[in-house]
Amino acid sequence: MKKPPTVGIIGGGQLSRMLCLAATQLGIPTATLERKQNCPAATVSGRHLVGDWNTIEALRALRAESDLLTLENEFVEAEALEQLEREGAILRPGSDCLRTIQDKLLQKQSLQAAGLPTPDFQATDSRAELDGAAERFGYPFVLKRRRNGYDGKGNFTVEDQAMLDEGWSELDGENHPLFAEAFCRFQSEIAIMVCRSSAGPQIHYPAVETIQKNHICHVVKAPAALPSAVEAEAVRIANRAVSTVSGIGSVGVELFLTHDQTFLVNELAPRVHNSGHYTIDACHCSQFENHLRAILGLPLGNPGLVRPAAVMINLLGDGPGRSYPSGVAEALEVDGVHLHLYGKDRSQLGRKMGHLTVIGNSVDDALERAHRAAQPIRFIET
Amino acid sequence: MKKPPTVGIIGGGQLSRMLCLAATQLGIPTATLERKQNCPAATVSGRHLVGDWNTIEALRALRAESDLLTLENEFVEAEALEQLEREGAILRPGSDCLRTIQDKLLQKQSLQAAGLPTPDFQATDSRAELDGAAERFGYPFVLKRRRNGYDGKGNFTVEDQAMLDEGWSELDGENHPLFAEAFCRFQSEIAIMVCRSSAGPQIHYPAVETIQKNHICHVVKAPAALPSAVEAEAVRIANRAVSTVSGIGSVGVELFLTHDQTFLVNELAPRVHNSGHYTIDACHCSQFENHLRAILGLPLGNPGLVRPAAVMINLLGDGPGRSYPSGVAEALEVDGVHLHLYGKDRSQLGRKMGHLTVIGNSVDDALERAHRAAQPIRFIET
Repeated sequence: MKKPPTVGIIGGGQLSRMLCLAATQLGIPTATLERKQNCPAATVSGRHLVGDWNTIEALRALRAESDLLTLENEFVEAEALEQLEREGAILRPGSDCLRTIQDKLLQKQSLQAAGLPTPDFQATDSRAELDGAAERFGYPFVLKRRRNGYDGKGNFTVEDQAMLDEGWSELDGENHPLFAEAFCRFQSEIAIMVCRSSAGPQIHYPAVETIQKNHICHVVKAPAALPSAVEAEAVRIANRAVSTVSGIGSVGVELFLTHDQTFLVNELAPRVHNSGHYTIDACHCSQFENHLRAILGLPLGNPGLVRPAAVMINLLGDGPGRSYPSGVAEALEVDGVHLHLYGKDRSQLGRKMGHLTVIGNSVDDALERAHRAAQPIRFIET
Repeated sequence: MKKPPTVGIIGGGQLSRMLCLAATQLGIPTATLERKQNCPAATVSGRHLVGDWNTIEALRALRAESDLLTLENEFVEAEALEQLEREGAILRPGSDCLRTIQDKLLQKQSLQAAGLPTPDFQATDSRAELDGAAERFGYPFVLKRRRNGYDGKGNFTVEDQAMLDEGWSELDGENHPLFAEAFCRFQSEIAIMVCRSSAGPQIHYPAVETIQKNHICHVVKAPAALPSAVEAEAVRIANRAVSTVSGIGSVGVELFLTHDQTFLVNELAPRVHNSGHYTIDACHCSQFENHLRAILGLPLGNPGLVRPAAVMINLLGDGPGRSYPSGVAEALEVDGVHLHLYGKDRSQLGRKMGHLTVIGNSVDDALERAHRAAQPIRFIET
């Protein structure tokens, strides 16, 4: 290879930014596409295009700057992506993978058809079918939009019969396809990043425990404290799930660990994933570098931890405010903290503004320092 | 701090590029200044200015984009930097430090005055004084330009009396101030990165062994295999040397270890340094992040190794060719290799095009893998 391929990244958020940083280190040029100029990836991509990534015109403009395309979110219209592929674009992962994953009902049906365990679910294409689901699952159960949900958005927990109408109207069931899912009383949430190369090989990162707060990933503990047979089962399911949906590159697999020590697949993210941010500072090769290696058909890197444990904490906006928080100096006093700030234009309540990672000899050690470092960070106008 | 300070970096080469990458991770905006558009830092700096960093006009333009300034080389005219400071610019390190270090004779005089060991040296302001130096030091001895030398450029080893004229004319002693230095028959070359904060604290990275090939850093082994009392002496000298010249930020200290296990200071680099590139992948906090923390007055990060050992190998141009080498896939087959390519416009024989680092349980283990990864990399037109 005399000239390195330019990787076009659909999206310009923090995932795109961290992909650009990994690409730069490897000497791989990048181009990015986002709806606005001022976004996390803009200053670190080789060429930043402003345009709506749900339009074929904008996608074509990105393609013109790129040798192959990848993406940082699963919300890009599969139809537009398929059109690009028909025009000869190399898209990794492909539109078929995106089509399956972006419709959560179709995703679950695919996983179920492959023999993978998921919570029970059924389509609820009408208000009447919602009654049927309630009868089948009992209360509580979860009503979800099939598309465009994330971080709890697009989900509604139906606690009793009186809430059926509220859920249907809250998620606007008349205009958005919904489905219902049995409520899972899990013991913990486990995630595994799998990375599958366009050249064939597939590797996986350690199983980690993820702790959500208000439906947003808050803390990731690596590795998860699992008996080895239980971890092996999580790895088997994750690997199988990624092959099932034809994932290429880094793919996040979210699992529920039930009280009887079995797993249910919650959902997949066909891209680098928040539960894998710890890999930048804690693993021999990060999920970002491995994503690039995978889509370029290069050998995959070692996903192992460099130290026995790591903890990642998300830094969320506390309200409307600036991109750069107060408390940075206090945070950096903590030994071994890796602070990542995304350079977003503004803070909003609950918006992902950055994260930090601490590695150590045990999860408890890393967790204590990570909490101490995160505590003073505040994104708010004062 | 509500708005992060923009760091202006004088220079746009690989050191500037790696500073920009570290700044981006921390959410710190950057601006860079280099003589051309197509340079390693351009795509990763927030704003890249094209201009000659030896002119006050170009430096003023960079200052206008920045809250404080730093640099990636010691060749910027100290007069221009002093002028900038008179105009109110914050420059870290300051022009006084640059003035002392960029004149190698003045640098050695300062170190000597502080009681630090250096090879014997003397000014040779005329051809007659060169004869005096030859008499004093015997043969071989080294003739050096006081300014602008690097990677062996600007040095001439005088093997016998017949070479005196050749050395004088090769280094153009009539037009460039020279000095002479006793030839040091060292056992090994040791380097230590020291990082000194503008807020006071000073830390140091492990002592490493550097192996040069054709006067260019080729391999860095971390840590150097030194008895602890010997390492402690190296650390004492390095720390003292950096305070002596008022270094701020990361400063490279190059030492000769003599056969009687004492040290002589070879030279200082008032900036991030090739001998510290291993710290990106091998240490809790890299020389680049610590440089930024230091110039911003933030707490310094842990300079310790995350694994017992690391080896860095420079990837040099094999001849005129492209920026992206052949052999990347073969290199990435090697377990744990961290490949860094600088995205320079063209390869030239001996030009620093990238580096790679491997961490491991021992220097021997890391060295074997690093050599195996570097072996297939070729920067040349085929």
